Parts: sequence; structure tokens; C-alpha cells
Amino acid sequence: LNMFKNAGSSAKSMETRRRILDAALLEFRVQGFETATMRSIAKRARMSLGSAYYYFPTKEAIVMAYYESVQAQHAALVAAALPAEKGLRQRLGLVIHSKLDLLAEDRELLGALLRFTGQPQHPLSFLGPGTRALREDSMRLFADALAREKLSPELHRLVVLSLWGLHMGVTLFFLYDDSKQHRRTRRLLDGALDLSIQLIRLARFPLLRPIYTRVTSLLQEVELLTAS
Amino acid sequence: LNMFKNAGSSAKSMETRRRILDAALLEFRVQGFETATMRSIAKRARMSLGSAYYYFPTKEAIVMAYYESVQAQHAALVAAALPAEKGLRQRLGLVIHSKLDLLAEDRELLGALLRFTGQPQHPLSFLGPGTRALREDSMRLFADALAREKLSPELHRLVVLSLWGLHMGVTLFFLYDDSKQHRRTRRLLDGALDLSIQLIRLARFPLLRPIYTRVTSLLQEVELLTAS
Repeated sequence: LNMFKNAGSSAKSMETRRRILDAALLEFRVQGFETATMRSIAKRARMSLGSAYYYFPTKEAIVMAYYESVQAQHAALVAAALPAEKGLRQRLGLVIHSKLDLLAEDRELLGALLRFTGQPQHPLSFLGPGTRALREDSMRLFADALAREKLSPELHRLVVLSLWGLHMGVTLFFLYDDSKQHRRTRRLLDGALDLSIQLIRLARFPLLRPIYTRVTSLLQEVELLTAS
Repeated sequence: LNMFKNAGSSAKSMETRRRILDAALLEFRVQGFETATMRSIAKRARMSLGSAYYYFPTKEAIVMAYYESVQAQHAALVAAALPAEKGLRQRLGLVIHSKLDLLAEDRELLGALLRFTGQPQHPLSFLGPGTRALREDSMRLFADALAREKLSPELHRLVVLSLWGLHMGVTLFFLYDDSKQHRRTRRLLDGALDLSIQLIRLARFPLLRPIYTRVTSLLQEVELLTAS
């Protein structure tokens, strides 16, 4: 997964990576992602440029570590809190709200990183092949939240992809939300989840089942959904 | 609309603006958006840097002119071809397919411009206040395509916004589509439009009407849809 890592993974080494990553995030917040350099990051981490390079060959490698760190923190949060959530609605709320909590301080950074999404082959594109493993990890959290539901495997895959897509869309909305404490984003998410629950229930009605099947075949045809 | 324009609008002046815009688009394609400068654009347009500045004070002003030019071309294409299209499905296909036709050579440029969408207040953000008028113009084309349908005003507004959103999503997919002649994008669009027609028809069923109403209230509440 960690394509850029070139240093050891001992406790000391992981601690140093974390120190650089934290310094980088602070530097991105203070200076902005564009202006931050490996030199300014090393300085903020109080280490030599050479030592920083030993852990991260480029600023982009630090960003990949940031993506991985967000995903790992999110997975840990969800794993800890999911068992206590009673219903599907609560479980889905937990998964996406906790992701927004994690990202709340990083909206500007995420905005700067969105640039890579315009370059499909860039390893840091949110939608490109370089982040596929992270997307799969993220979708697994939605699959976990859905685990107790009795859905056909086909509908399960469609719902997981749709919820992951909803979480991406809500995060984009989040970047634009200037309401107090991002109230509008939280409201959009809650409303969209209430509707999602209703749509999942409706999938059982004969009137709508063919629509879900058609959506699934279409997404498979254009390779947005795998067939198995 | 044209916030950057500071030169006259005589035929000669409009012709010169067009010449600079064309040179800029060529320069963006050859050199890439990042590397292109006002100087390199002026050179390609065979004019002095000073003359180019008279028409466009910045590279960003040229991009705004590009946005406006795409929108104007799209509106002209749709206005010319819409009356001949018999059904709603054909009309919607015309609107979005013709937009993809217009953008087909500019996928890389659009990818480079996506960076601004991470900065909500940037005048060139695809989703920010600086391009609101262009979004409204674009949505008007969908409203035109829907004009003959008997939809409640509420449903009409929801469908216009959804179709515009679909067109944005399909364009993002387009940037990532490496299939021959973008076949996957065209297939996704056609499949999504077939489904959209079916969903618009289903909106009349009592089972689903409350869902559309809830979607509308939610979008109004978070200010993605205006109330009137």
C-alpha cells in the first residue's frame, strides 16, 4: 500500500515518520500546500533536510502518508464504535460523520489536493489508480456497516458504491460550506442518509427492483462496479 | 457576465479577443496550462505582450473567456438542434452529448482547471460564486429540453438540477475515460439518461412522490436548490 515508504518500520522509525507528517500538516495549514517545501517541513519538524528525505523522498510522498493516516484513523474509529450502533441508519451516520470529523481541520488542504484529481494518472488523484487501495479500504467500512442487512450480493455492492459516492459528494460540499460548524453539511448528510435508508427499503418493491438491476448492469458495463 | 473584459466590443476587438483565446487554448494544449504564460500566449497569437494584456489582464481572464465561449457555443448548438428532436430522451441526449463533443479536445485542460474547484472563492472554480451565472445558463438548456413536459414546478426544478449534476459527473468520468472514442462515457450517459427518463415517469406514482418532495426540501434547506 505504502508505495513511497523507503525507511524501516521500527517503532522509532514510525515515530519519526509521524513527526514529519504532523509537521507537514501544520506547514500546509500555515503556509499552504503550494508554498510548503521539503525544506520548510524539515525545519518545522526540527530535523535536517537529509533526514526528512530519508523518510519521504517528496512532498507528494507525505501527502500519500496523510491519505493513509486518515484512512487508518477512520477505520480505527469505525471499528471501535460500530458494534455499539443499533440500527443501519446509526451505523451509516457513524461512518460518514466520523470521516467529516477527521477532515474538519483540513478543508483547505483537501481543496489544494483536489488539483491532482484532474490528472487521472497522478498517484495522488482521489479517483485514480494510485489511490484504488485506499478507496477499497474506505468502501469496506460501508460494507461493514451494511453487514447485518439482508441484501442480495448485487444490491449490497451497489449500495456500498453509492454510499461511498455520497460520502465523496458530501465531502466536496463540505469544502464549500461556510455555515456555522458546517451545519449545512451535517444536515445534508443526515437528510441524504434518511433518504438512502428509504431507498434501500424500497429496493424490495417489484416496481423498483428492475431499476436497481439496470443501474447495476450499467455501472458494471462502464467499469465503475466489478461484476463479482 | 464577462467580469474580466476591459477592451471594447467592436467586431475588430472581438476578433482579436478570439484570436488570443484560440492561441491560448493551443498553447495550453501544447505546453500545458501550468507552463503557459501571458508572454507565450501573446507570442503564439503573433502580437505584443502589451496588446494581449489590453484584452486579457491575466491568464485567468482568458480561462473565464474560455468558459464563456464553451457556454455560448453550447447554447447555440442546443438552440439550433433542439426543435428537431422529437422526444424528451432525444432532447436530453442532445444537450449532454453536444457538451461532451465541445469538450472532447480539452480534457487535459479541464483537468488542469479542476484545481480551482478546490478553492471555493476562486473566480474560476467550477462550483464557486464566480461561475454561478454560467451554471444558470447551463441549467437553462436543461430547462429548455424539459419545457414540453408536464412537471410540477417543484419537480421541474429538481430534475433540472439533477440533470445538470449528471452532466457534471459524466464530464468528470470523461476525464478518466481511456476507452476508444470515449465509448464508456457515451454509454454511461445514455444509460443514465434512459434511467432518468424512467425516474421522471415514476415521480407520478404515489409510492415515490414523497421521496421527491423530501429530496426537494432537503436540497432547499442546504441551499443547493432555491425555494422559488
